[in-house]
Order: sequence, then structure tokens, then C-alpha cells
Amino acid sequence: MAAGRVLLVGAGPGDPELLTLKAAKALRSADVVLHDELVSPEILKLIPANAEVLNVGKRCGKKSTPQEDTNRLLIQHAIMGRSVVRLKGGDPFIFGRGGEELEALRNAGIEVEVVPGITAALGVAAGNQIPLTHREIASTLVLVTGSSKHSGHIANWPDRLPSNATIVVYMPGHEFAPLQHRLLAAGVAAQTPCAIISGATTESEQVHITSVRELSNAPRLVSPRLVVVGEVVHFADQVKQQFSGFTVSNHLAEVSPIVRESVE
Amino acid sequence: MAAGRVLLVGAGPGDPELLTLKAAKALRSADVVLHDELVSPEILKLIPANAEVLNVGKRCGKKSTPQEDTNRLLIQHAIMGRSVVRLKGGDPFIFGRGGEELEALRNAGIEVEVVPGITAALGVAAGNQIPLTHREIASTLVLVTGSSKHSGHIANWPDRLPSNATIVVYMPGHEFAPLQHRLLAAGVAAQTPCAIISGATTESEQVHITSVRELSNAPRLVSPRLVVVGEVVHFADQVKQQFSGFTVSNHLAEVSPIVRESVE
Repeated sequence: MAAGRVLLVGAGPGDPELLTLKAAKALRSADVVLHDELVSPEILKLIPANAEVLNVGKRCGKKSTPQEDTNRLLIQHAIMGRSVVRLKGGDPFIFGRGGEELEALRNAGIEVEVVPGITAALGVAAGNQIPLTHREIASTLVLVTGSSKHSGHIANWPDRLPSNATIVVYMPGHEFAPLQHRLLAAGVAAQTPCAIISGATTESEQVHITSVRELSNAPRLVSPRLVVVGEVVHFADQVKQQFSGFTVSNHLAEVSPIVRESVE
Repeated sequence: MAAGRVLLVGAGPGDPELLTLKAAKALRSADVVLHDELVSPEILKLIPANAEVLNVGKRCGKKSTPQEDTNRLLIQHAIMGRSVVRLKGGDPFIFGRGGEELEALRNAGIEVEVVPGITAALGVAAGNQIPLTHREIASTLVLVTGSSKHSGHIANWPDRLPSNATIVVYMPGHEFAPLQHRLLAAGVAAQTPCAIISGATTESEQVHITSVRELSNAPRLVSPRLVVVGEVVHFADQVKQQFSGFTVSNHLAEVSPIVRESVE
């Protein structure tokens, strides 16, 4: 029976201040940190100088470390009795393959503790003032992934998305035409507003606001990207909208009175 | 034009260590904090002694403060030039009526900043080691609310829930029979496992693991409660399962091989 212990820690969406107190504490007492490519450099600065830091997101800037290698490294360091932190972008259990790491560690007899993180959808919503749920216009929140990490295609997309919902698409891919097709096929109305956000909660954040109808013509913002789809996108912060070239008045004709009131 | 500014801050699911660094900083510099009933006493201890603290969740332990009164208080304090924090359980934009407060403040010309929080679903998932998404068995996460705050009935429930999804029900109510009915009607299989969690991430956390078929017979755990529905519930931490009387072996017969492997 192995003696070690691994903390699966959510690093949040990018801004170091969006780490939880518990995550910051975990980093301060780590002997070794294995992190994703997505974790921002400002957060990595919080790791003590004497801790070992391994980027398991990319190897030599080339390709991703296979999941099996990451699992093996976690187990090896834990067995050595070190305080191991597996630092994952966002929340470990939202599209982060944290479940697979949990399984591998349990199978190896390693104790696991999980520290949640602000998942990208929440970071983007707060930063752009988009309420993900709203009593009148969004009673359900759906988080989906645009592309599976291995195949690049849209995996296991729901046949039908609930109406009156906000949909957040993680890893939407470079090309938005397949996503647009899937949204329409799942019953989302063409005039539904969308926000494409890149580099959420960091200084390089970029926001482009469009509609499902125009989604395939959207500019290619740099990765990591997220797409928020739903009437609540009309709430998006006007300061940011001006910055990104979005003109509020162009969209108001399509908006319900309650939303229009709040945007004006 | 009013001069004030309000921070809508997420307090997270209960454990004070699950506050973000940014939320803790906001509390430390607050002149006045208006908080929900759901915010735990340990978190309220972080507010400076000279700050005014108003509980707008309940009034004199009787009934909720009407939303309009909360909005009015926020505006009044902001206009006085005070540093106002509106501290909400979980995340301000997930079933927290943060959108309505945002609208009211914008309409009054008050500047708003939003600090996200760990929403209850993420806190519960981390604490009980339930991965909310999983490459093989849960490609979609759906957050819904069981009862609307005003009417007590299940409002705007999706007609059909995606298969291969994890569903988290906020505010599921005391009676689980209506929820069970809705889940079945929306296409969720009767044998799907469910976890009912009360007092998530606090010392008084209680967990009851059951299935959709047995949901209506579940014990009445104290509020706040959350129900997690989906195959991923089979991952729930075995230590907690034993504590709550759940016997892993009773459920294994229904579980797919990959899940069974991880539970054993």
C-alpha cells in the first residue's frame, strides 16, 4: 500500500486572484507541482522556489504529455512521500480529466484530495457581467465541450439543448461552423447571442459578441477560448463591448424588453 | 449620476478556505457587507470589525428580505460613497439572482464589479470526489433549480435532459417525489445514481447516496441541499459513503466496468 498523497487543485480561469485560499495554501506547501499548459505564469510564481515544477501540458513545446505518463508521474512522486500538487486550469472536475487521474491514483492506493477551482464559465461570466442564470430568461445552465481532446471532433453533443438555457462551450475549436451547425441542430435559435472569449480573466482577454447566425464568420481568437450562448449574453459589460467593437444598438431590436432595459 | 460602486462577491459553498483571494480581499476592505443567509458564519468572521454587516437573507429570522429592498439598500450605501460588498452564497451568477441586482445597480448608475465564487456543484464534487464530467460517461453538465424562490414549484424544467450528462439540482426542495417525477419524465433512467448533499463543504455536511428510483424515499436532510444525478456519482468517496450508510457492493451490479473498476 502506497503512502503518498496527491492534491488535485483547480487553478481557476487565469487571474491569480481567482485561486481559492485553499489552492494558494496547497501551492505554498508543495514539494512538486505538475501543471497544465493552461495555468497562467502569474500563478506558477506562487510556487515556492525549492519546489519542483513540471509542465505536463506540453513537452518541449511540442505535443501533450500522454495522460498515462501524467498519471505515472503523479504516482511516482506520491510514493516517494512528497507533497504532490496536480494543478489544473479551471476546476479539476469540469472537462479537466481529473476523474481519470482520480481513478489512476485510487487504483495505485494513493490518497487523493480535491480542491475545486473557478471554472472558466464562471470566470468569464463575472468578468463580462453575464449572469449565467436569470429568473426570466435562463433557468438552466449547460456546459458542453466542443471538441474531444484526442479526436478534435464534437463528441457526445446533446441531441437537443433545453430552451431557456445558457450554454457554455469549452474548447470550441478554431472553426465555428461545426459548432454553429450543432447549436442549430439542437434547437438553439439563430438569433441567440453568443460571446466568444479568449484568455478569460487575464490581461490579454478578448471578447467578440455575435449571434449563432453569424458564429461561423467570427474572428479566430487565440486559445484558450470559450463560447457563451444565450439571451443573457445581452447583459455583457458595455465597456468591454465597445472595446471589442460590439455596438449595443444593433442588437437591441431582437432583445426582449427586460433585457433591453438593463442594457440601455 | 451616482458615484458609488458595488462588488457582487461569491462566498463559495461554505468552507471559508474556498473563498477566492479576490473575495477575501474585497471583504477585508469593505465598509458594508450585505449577505445571504447561506453565507457561513466562519466567512462572516473575515469581515473587519468596523464594517457594517447586514443579513438580507432573512429578517428577524422570519421571512426573506424582498429583492427590491436588497436592491434599494445596495444603491443607498453605494451612493453614500461606501465600499459595498454584496456577499452571495456560491457564485453570484448561478441561481443567485445576481443578474437582477446587476440590472438594478446599472439602472441606478452604480458601477458594479463581479467576483466569481465556487458554486455549490463544484464544492460538492470536489469534497465527495465526484468528477462532474468524465470522458466516457459524462460529456455534459446541466445545472438546474428544483424550485423557484417564489412559488416553490419546479420552474422551467427542461423537457428533455441530455443523456450522458451529469445533472446538478440546486434548491431541490424538501420533497423529492416531484423531482423524481421530473427526472424520469425528462428521460433519466431509474437506476441512475443520485447523491443528496446537505451543508456542502462544511463540518455538518451529510451525504445520502441513492438512485432516481429510490429518490422519493430519501431522508430529509437539512437545507441547503443539492442533488447530483448521474453515473459519475459512483465515484463518490468511499469513506464518506460508509459514513452515510451507502454500501458500494449493492450498487456495483448496475455499474459499467470502467466505473466499477474505479470504485473497487
